[in-house]
Amino acid sequence: MNYSELSLKMHEENKGKVEVVSKIKVETKDDLSIAYTPGVAEPCRKIHENKENAYKYTAKGNLIAVVTDGSAVLGLGNIGPEAGMPVMEGKSILFKEFGNVDAVPICLNTNNVDEIVETVKRISPTFGGINLEDISAPRCFEIENRLKEELDIPVFHDDQHGTAVVVIAALINALKIVDKKVEDINVVVNGSGAAGGAIVRMLLDLGVSNVIMCDSKGIIYKGSPTNNWVKEELAEITNKEDRRGNLKDAMVGSDVFIGVSVANVVDEDMIKSMNKDAIIFAMANPVPEVYPDVAKAAGARVVGTGRSDFANQINNVLAFPGIFRGALDARAKDINNDMNIAAAYAIANFIDESELNEEYIIPNALNKDVAENVAKAVKQAAIDAGLARI
Amino acid sequence: MNYSELSLKMHEENKGKVEVVSKIKVETKDDLSIAYTPGVAEPCRKIHENKENAYKYTAKGNLIAVVTDGSAVLGLGNIGPEAGMPVMEGKSILFKEFGNVDAVPICLNTNNVDEIVETVKRISPTFGGINLEDISAPRCFEIENRLKEELDIPVFHDDQHGTAVVVIAALINALKIVDKKVEDINVVVNGSGAAGGAIVRMLLDLGVSNVIMCDSKGIIYKGSPTNNWVKEELAEITNKEDRRGNLKDAMVGSDVFIGVSVANVVDEDMIKSMNKDAIIFAMANPVPEVYPDVAKAAGARVVGTGRSDFANQINNVLAFPGIFRGALDARAKDINNDMNIAAAYAIANFIDESELNEEYIIPNALNKDVAENVAKAVKQAAIDAGLARI
Repeated sequence: MNYSELSLKMHEENKGKVEVVSKIKVETKDDLSIAYTPGVAEPCRKIHENKENAYKYTAKGNLIAVVTDGSAVLGLGNIGPEAGMPVMEGKSILFKEFGNVDAVPICLNTNNVDEIVETVKRISPTFGGINLEDISAPRCFEIENRLKEELDIPVFHDDQHGTAVVVIAALINALKIVDKKVEDINVVVNGSGAAGGAIVRMLLDLGVSNVIMCDSKGIIYKGSPTNNWVKEELAEITNKEDRRGNLKDAMVGSDVFIGVSVANVVDEDMIKSMNKDAIIFAMANPVPEVYPDVAKAAGARVVGTGRSDFANQINNVLAFPGIFRGALDARAKDINNDMNIAAAYAIANFIDESELNEEYIIPNALNKDVAENVAKAVKQAAIDAGLARI
Repeated sequence: MNYSELSLKMHEENKGKVEVVSKIKVETKDDLSIAYTPGVAEPCRKIHENKENAYKYTAKGNLIAVVTDGSAVLGLGNIGPEAGMPVMEGKSILFKEFGNVDAVPICLNTNNVDEIVETVKRISPTFGGINLEDISAPRCFEIENRLKEELDIPVFHDDQHGTAVVVIAALINALKIVDKKVEDINVVVNGSGAAGGAIVRMLLDLGVSNVIMCDSKGIIYKGSPTNNWVKEELAEITNKEDRRGNLKDAMVGSDVFIGVSVANVVDEDMIKSMNKDAIIFAMANPVPEVYPDVAKAAGARVVGTGRSDFANQINNVLAFPGIFRGALDARAKDINNDMNIAAAYAIANFIDESELNEEYIIPNALNKDVAENVAKAVKQAAIDAGLARI
């Protein structure tokens, strides 16, 4: 059987993947009197006196909602909230298995920005954090921005920042191998969906100054008639030389290609047009922008993809469980850029420099120790940023 | 330590009571590929083809939301959504421990009926059922009615129907002991909150024809200037003789007193004014309307309360886990009156007639076998009513 068949079988046998269980036993009268009436009135009273006590006496501080409207699920597009559920459950169990975060799928039957924001705000007393997932661009940006502003718990859109964190982590280590400095490199980012913009902003935070962004219409530039507000904002902070043209033009003389776009948009000639020791992160799934063997044959030095069957799998699971673990441990009000950068360095530095090589720039996605390192770094960054409430 | 202290300690040590765990292991590349990308795309596709497949491939069919706005929590009143969380978590773990139902607390920071209805509808693709909890009357009635109408999953307000089911179960058995028929008895229900109305309606469904309802203003009657729409509706179906007066007046010549009201409103004289072999269910918590020893001394034959330290504890936990288990097993569109009546009989009939006595009219609240019997009966009632989708 292939993964599709195995997955169907597994999902049917288990009826999904998440389960809500009790941390305590309820066997005796005393158990019931302590967990429920009459004893439970006392923690209720304490929280009524001071809402902050919710973190002390309830699951809130370790409970997050994994929220989607099912509008941009995997590569499947707008398949709706019910069909998004298997992915949200997948995310939930990865949160638990890798970060010991309790995560509840919440699939919404509205695509309206105001309604999504409103709904998440209304259910927010239950949760210590909100992970947005598989919501299509550009709505996802407005939803995240508004929720970050209006809620005092961490809000994180994994398709943006989770992806950016692991890409930046991979880049940090790849640059060590090719011995180039962030401030010197030219980077091309292909794809202007959720991930592309976040990667661009994080590259700038990291100290990269030359970034060109492309999408299906070619190089993004200021004032382009095809720009929406999101692309116009990105045009303002990229493409300093105001270049025009297509992806092929953009890649000439570049050091790094980061693809969060579609299959097979990069060929050998494009890679040959890049600078020496080119770095290629071809993250399109399941078929990457260019296959590693092709990229290598054309002269690329370091190649990563989103796939587990090639070296250097750049997978969000290295980021999101540890980021939320750290944010929750700090009881952070927000997850800010510094916390994301700290997460990227924690992932990169998980690999000792002596072990680092072209085929091993990023930890194995299944290494559960990574999250703990990420959590520590993120918690410290939250404290340093004055966002912690512990 | 008393229960309050023990409860605080337990809640703090465990940081609440619920936990969201994975049903499957995620250790290997294959695990990840089956539970998450790329394999998970296949169940997503199947559900996109047909939403009903959500019941086959996701947790939806066994997952319910325990929804509150924190407006009527235990005896604590309107303490808000955060402070309601310990009760919702308590409910969630009882759902799991007694009915193997996965239940997620959802505490809403709005008291507005339209907003609550709208929010529950928006999150409903995630869930196989909605349990409303601790929402104040009369808003709870409108919220439940609208959600029942607008959603095709079971919606159940436990404070109304869960309480009614266990009270009716206790009544069915108490009537066996005193050898009276439902159609002959005069019943007084004191309390016009969530539970009172549901009990009255269920008494009528059971075949009782003489019911008088009281609240703090006395006997409820048609056209009373203090009636809101809820009480006016109840006045229409009760108090056939159009009696007036207070609770004391109402109780003269009655066979059954059911209190879902406040402490100490029934005295010896009132019980003495009842018919022979009176039945008293004094459910106010923690102090009942009358203590069992007082009621017995005044001539009551069968007495039940909400408390575990007296005989005949009439506790909702006997009802809600099994009711939802049955409704979910039938994939019922709704939980209707027949299903509630079936649940009441299943609880009553759990006790063999040979064991039945004045001190044992209802199963022990901690007997986890009750829920299974209730579930079977409820599932069958759903099938009989044409509400099942299996």
